[in-house]
Amino acid sequence: MEYIGYLAAFCTTFAFFPQAIMAIRTKDVKSISLTMYSILCFGISMWLVYGILKADWPLILANLITLLPSLTILYLKVASVVKKK
Amino acid sequence: MEYIGYLAAFCTTFAFFPQAIMAIRTKDVKSISLTMYSILCFGISMWLVYGILKADWPLILANLITLLPSLTILYLKVASVVKKK
Repeated sequence: MEYIGYLAAFCTTFAFFPQAIMAIRTKDVKSISLTMYSILCFGISMWLVYGILKADWPLILANLITLLPSLTILYLKVASVVKKK
Repeated sequence: MEYIGYLAAFCTTFAFFPQAIMAIRTKDVKSISLTMYSILCFGISMWLVYGILKADWPLILANLITLLPSLTILYLKVASVVKKK
């Protein structure tokens, strides 16, 4: 049963990398929601704070890894919105 | 401290709704990664199975809610890829 948890954690942690790579390569972030990635990055950061407060290393590690591509996508989206103005 | 956990859970659970709404409204899913949402939906489903096996209701509920917009985005992306062929 634990393996299902590890598999789930692995998938939801690394799922954002393909989107970050695609956004970096194509520079096309038009159909990506700024609201989603703002809320998501804030939420992941809160999980990180929660993990640090609880000294829960798997939680800290998983959210640090997920934060990387999510912040990249958020940055590219904000940059494209700023450029339009 | 628990409030940080609830806030984090709320954000990462509901973050996908704005993207699903945007995709439904604009029908533009071009810059959305099919790979990301395939892995993500699989991962969320694994969390759901894990939650059911552990009878962990918060885990079941959170992932059921997250699965809804994620599957919607995946469906719209697959539909747009199929249409192109």
